[in-house]
Amino acid sequence: MSVTLDDIHAARERIKGHARVTPLLSSPFLDEIAGKRVLVKPECLQITGSFKYRGARSALSALDTETRAKGVIAFSSGNHAQGVAQAARDFGVPAVIIMPSDAPALKLANTRALGAEVVTYDRAGEDRDAIGASLAQERRLTLIKPFDDPRVIAGQGTVGLEIAEQATALGVTEAAVLIPCGGGGLTSGTALALSDAAPKMRVHPVEPEGFDDVARSLASGHHEVNTRLSGSLCDAIITPSPGKLTLPLMLAHCGPGLTVTETQVLDAMAQAFLRLKLVTEPGGAVALAAALHHADQTEAETVIAVVSGGNVDPDIFTQALATLSPAE
Amino acid sequence: MSVTLDDIHAARERIKGHARVTPLLSSPFLDEIAGKRVLVKPECLQITGSFKYRGARSALSALDTETRAKGVIAFSSGNHAQGVAQAARDFGVPAVIIMPSDAPALKLANTRALGAEVVTYDRAGEDRDAIGASLAQERRLTLIKPFDDPRVIAGQGTVGLEIAEQATALGVTEAAVLIPCGGGGLTSGTALALSDAAPKMRVHPVEPEGFDDVARSLASGHHEVNTRLSGSLCDAIITPSPGKLTLPLMLAHCGPGLTVTETQVLDAMAQAFLRLKLVTEPGGAVALAAALHHADQTEAETVIAVVSGGNVDPDIFTQALATLSPAE
Repeated sequence: MSVTLDDIHAARERIKGHARVTPLLSSPFLDEIAGKRVLVKPECLQITGSFKYRGARSALSALDTETRAKGVIAFSSGNHAQGVAQAARDFGVPAVIIMPSDAPALKLANTRALGAEVVTYDRAGEDRDAIGASLAQERRLTLIKPFDDPRVIAGQGTVGLEIAEQATALGVTEAAVLIPCGGGGLTSGTALALSDAAPKMRVHPVEPEGFDDVARSLASGHHEVNTRLSGSLCDAIITPSPGKLTLPLMLAHCGPGLTVTETQVLDAMAQAFLRLKLVTEPGGAVALAAALHHADQTEAETVIAVVSGGNVDPDIFTQALATLSPAE
Repeated sequence: MSVTLDDIHAARERIKGHARVTPLLSSPFLDEIAGKRVLVKPECLQITGSFKYRGARSALSALDTETRAKGVIAFSSGNHAQGVAQAARDFGVPAVIIMPSDAPALKLANTRALGAEVVTYDRAGEDRDAIGASLAQERRLTLIKPFDDPRVIAGQGTVGLEIAEQATALGVTEAAVLIPCGGGGLTSGTALALSDAAPKMRVHPVEPEGFDDVARSLASGHHEVNTRLSGSLCDAIITPSPGKLTLPLMLAHCGPGLTVTETQVLDAMAQAFLRLKLVTEPGGAVALAAALHHADQTEAETVIAVVSGGNVDPDIFTQALATLSPAE
């Protein structure tokens, strides 16, 4: 089961008029910090506040009516949960969401408010996959995986089609495309889409320092594993290891991975507030952080950073704003 | 000197490819608060963080090359300043900006960073018009007024053309369109545009309580005056009285004005953070506040709120976030 360019184009047709076409933003102040032209794709403005709605809508819309009517189940630290809950709500079908008990309060509340049934588990001690599989079988629900599903990857890949078109309209055909990377659904789908739609754009996954399983996997060619799964500000993009489907796609289409510190992430969130008027979550801001602080690690004249989500608790956002000097 | 529909269409051609076409956003959570469908036009995502760039770019692009080369001058509490500074920078011509000495630090700093020369004045004791006129004459600069200029009003009116097209694409042809209103440039331009492009949409200016010169002027048919010009959280939209050009347009095309409290404004800023992932400034959030709290004062099934800007100091934004309960 692989993913093709045709799958991405088909996903785009299915999500059209439902998922938002997010704009491509910029600011001379960000260009100055990076020392290069910076373009930002704000998926925090997507339905449910993250790119995850694309994949969820793509997956649910690909199910046959009878299967879909029985309902869906998903496990997620939050953004995938909201994407699946919203897509299920669109279709009027049940959604069961398995979430870690330490997920941000906002994400738990939003998922419930979107009509989903939430089942929590202990991130350190319980196996979410086993819990999910068992519930799915019991209630005949279709499991919507967060990244290792061709329909999900194809949905996320629509970000790549939009970047290619929007950047080309600005006269940009060569660029380093930096993408916040957890399991690799957004990264692999976007990289596959760009390999055809804008072959001079090179995708680099971006991860928080200490949780760089994808960067190491791209370097070794094998599935590398994170030694820790908690303790990061960027909880939304921490996964044990890249996916079975996503890693081969990333190996085929991506450049080396980049990593950023938490200080750089908070700075990127503050700059997105100041210069783009965007609310970003830590995991969603890692690629912007890399664009601002590590643009020299990429070859192209232009850096395109995807902001993958904006579902952040107010106290963490306030913490990012507190890093700004009074002059700003 | 009046403003026509043709002027707005001509302005759109002149600013095309420079000003951003901002999207039209929504959230089921906002619909629930308002009790109606709510659509949001986020001009905080515009170049320089507010709609003001549209009018400034429209005005500068309408000048003949020789006149423009001598430079421009503007007086503004901040957003118009940044719009004019950016437009002047685009054309590589000098800009002198006269700003109140108590303008937010961020706005003063940004205007200077955009290459403009900033001259400050005391908002309570000095006449900014006289200072502007004197400097303009002395240096042969062209004065770009913040709202009472046909080319500026035409530029702001392009917001109306976009709303008509974007709402129609969503199947919405009837709506109350709520607009943050200071001197009335954005309100009058948008109302004029919609009178032709979407005649079943009715514009209502929105002001902070205690600074409702436009609402009272619309009720009396004459230019009413604010008794105070300072002491509002919504500094960006406080003006003495509606413009000479803008009031007749608003009398011809607008419904009654609405007012909101500062508590409602802070709540709207917090909801825009939570549900739309937008950074909004107090003055820019008054129409969203009215949509959330006073939708019952409008007749249409759908409310479209323009968020006019996002240039807010971090401490005021933090104050808005602090109004959220932990559950949110």
